Amino acid sequence: MNNTIQEGWETIRFHGESPEVVDEEIATEFALTIVVNGDEFATMVCSPSDLQELVMGFLTAEGVIRFVEEVKDIAIDESMGFAYVELYKELDVVETDHSKRVIGSCCGKSRQFYFKSDVKTAKTITSKLQLSVEQCYVLMEKLQRQSDQFKRTGGVHNAALATIDDLLAIRTDIGRHNALDKIYGYILQKRVSLKDKLIVFSGRISSEVLLKISKIGTGIVLSKSAPTDMALKLATDLGITVIGFARGDKMNVYTHSYRILEANKANPV
Amino acid sequence: MNNTIQEGWETIRFHGESPEVVDEEIATEFALTIVVNGDEFATMVCSPSDLQELVMGFLTAEGVIRFVEEVKDIAIDESMGFAYVELYKELDVVETDHSKRVIGSCCGKSRQFYFKSDVKTAKTITSKLQLSVEQCYVLMEKLQRQSDQFKRTGGVHNAALATIDDLLAIRTDIGRHNALDKIYGYILQKRVSLKDKLIVFSGRISSEVLLKISKIGTGIVLSKSAPTDMALKLATDLGITVIGFARGDKMNVYTHSYRILEANKANPV
Repeated sequence: MNNTIQEGWETIRFHGESPEVVDEEIATEFALTIVVNGDEFATMVCSPSDLQELVMGFLTAEGVIRFVEEVKDIAIDESMGFAYVELYKELDVVETDHSKRVIGSCCGKSRQFYFKSDVKTAKTITSKLQLSVEQCYVLMEKLQRQSDQFKRTGGVHNAALATIDDLLAIRTDIGRHNALDKIYGYILQKRVSLKDKLIVFSGRISSEVLLKISKIGTGIVLSKSAPTDMALKLATDLGITVIGFARGDKMNVYTHSYRILEANKANPV
Repeated sequence: MNNTIQEGWETIRFHGESPEVVDEEIATEFALTIVVNGDEFATMVCSPSDLQELVMGFLTAEGVIRFVEEVKDIAIDESMGFAYVELYKELDVVETDHSKRVIGSCCGKSRQFYFKSDVKTAKTITSKLQLSVEQCYVLMEKLQRQSDQFKRTGGVHNAALATIDDLLAIRTDIGRHNALDKIYGYILQKRVSLKDKLIVFSGRISSEVLLKISKIGTGIVLSKSAPTDMALKLATDLGITVIGFARGDKMNVYTHSYRILEANKANPV
C-alpha cells in the first residue's frame, strides 16, 4: 500500500506510431494545510507520506521553531488534509506576518488559491486542434535541440508556443512556472490566437501547471516529463489533452486523446 | 551575451576518479520584485530574460489583470531587480490580500525571506567530513536504485541522509523542497548527529535548497542535478561542498572541494 501513487490511470502509450492502452502509475498530489496554535499558517502541495516529518522540517526551516522541544503536539488529519501543530510558545508578530507570505515550496499554491482565484480564470477548453504522433515527436525534438542553455547549464526549463508544425516562441527560466508565465506574457502582448496552438514544455505537469495551461487557453500540453494525478483530474474536467514522457519516439497520452490522430487506433482514453 | 548564464565557475569535473579543472556555465538566479500601483506585490526568483513577459503572464495567471489593456505601464529596473507596474484600475481588497499569499512560483522565496528569516537560521558549516569520489558514485547509485517510485511515476524527488558508506533514510515527494523538509524533520525527531553525514539529493540546487542544507547543517550536498549561480555563491560563503551532475561515473565539484579526497589531485576550487 502506497498512497503516494495513484494506480490504474488509463493511458495510451505510444512507441513510434503504435498505440497501446495501459494502466499507468501516477504520482499523487496532496494538499496539506498547517495550522499552528489554531491559526492557519500555510498550505503546501506534497506527496502524502511522512507528513509529521514534513511539518517538523518545514516549521524549522522557516524559523518558526528551533528545537523539537518547542512543539507540544502535532496531529495529522490525513483525510481532511490538515496538520494541527501546538507550540509551547506563541508565534511572534514577525512570524505571523512572515507566515502569510509563504506558500508551498516548490509545487504549490494554497488550497484557497485553487478555490478562489482559479475559478475566476481557469476555463474549459473546447479546441478542435488535432495532430499526429509524429508531429508531437518533432516538436519535442525541436524544443530539446533549441534549448541550448539547458545543455550548457542543465539548470533551466523551457516552454514553447507551437503550431502543429513548428515552435513559434521558446522561453527559458530556472523556474518551470516562470517559463510558462513568460510564454503567457508573450501570447498576451502579441495577441496570439490560440485556436491552432499548443504548449510544448520540459517540466513536470503538476496541478498548478495544468491550471496555467487552462488559463492560457490551449487544448494540448506536450511535456517531456510526468504528470501528477491532480493535474490529470483537472485536465479531464477542463478538456485539456495531456501528453507526457515525450522522449525520442515514445510518449504517453493521458487525457482527451481524441486530439491525437493515431489514438483512435487504440481504445479511447 | 546572455545574462541568464554565469560563465567561468571554476569546477572540478570528475570522470571516474580523474579530476579536471574546468570553467563551467551555471544558470543565473535573479530576484525580481513586482510593484503594482506603488505597492510591493510579490518577489519571484527567475532567470533574467523576457522580464516584461514574465510580469505580464504572472499577473494574468494570478487573476490580477485579465487583459493587457488594463496595464498602463511596465518599467523594468533590471539593475535593482524591480518591475514597476501601473494599472488603470486599483487592486481590489481580495487581490491585495491574495497577493500577500503568493510568493515565487517554483523556485523561490521573497528577497525579504533571504534577508530576515534566513539570517536567523542559516549557519556556516565547519564539518570535517571527507569522502572519496567512488563513495559519491555509490551513494548516488543507491539513491537511484532505491527510488522505486521515481521509476514508476517519474514524478517525484528524493532526498536521503547518508554516511559516507550508506543511505540511512530516504524521503520522497513531488516537491523537492518537501523531500528535503521530510529529511530535516527526520533528523530533528531522531536527534541525528550530523558530524559524519551528508545529503544525497535528486533535485536541482537552487539558493533555497542550499539554504535549507545549511539550516539542516551538513557540510556536503551530492545531487544528480545542476546548481544555480546564487546557490554556489551561498555555498562558498557558508562552507558547503556542492557536488552536482552525479550520474554514473561522472560528477562535478563546485565548491569547497577539499572534502573530496581525490580533488586534491586537481587544482583546488
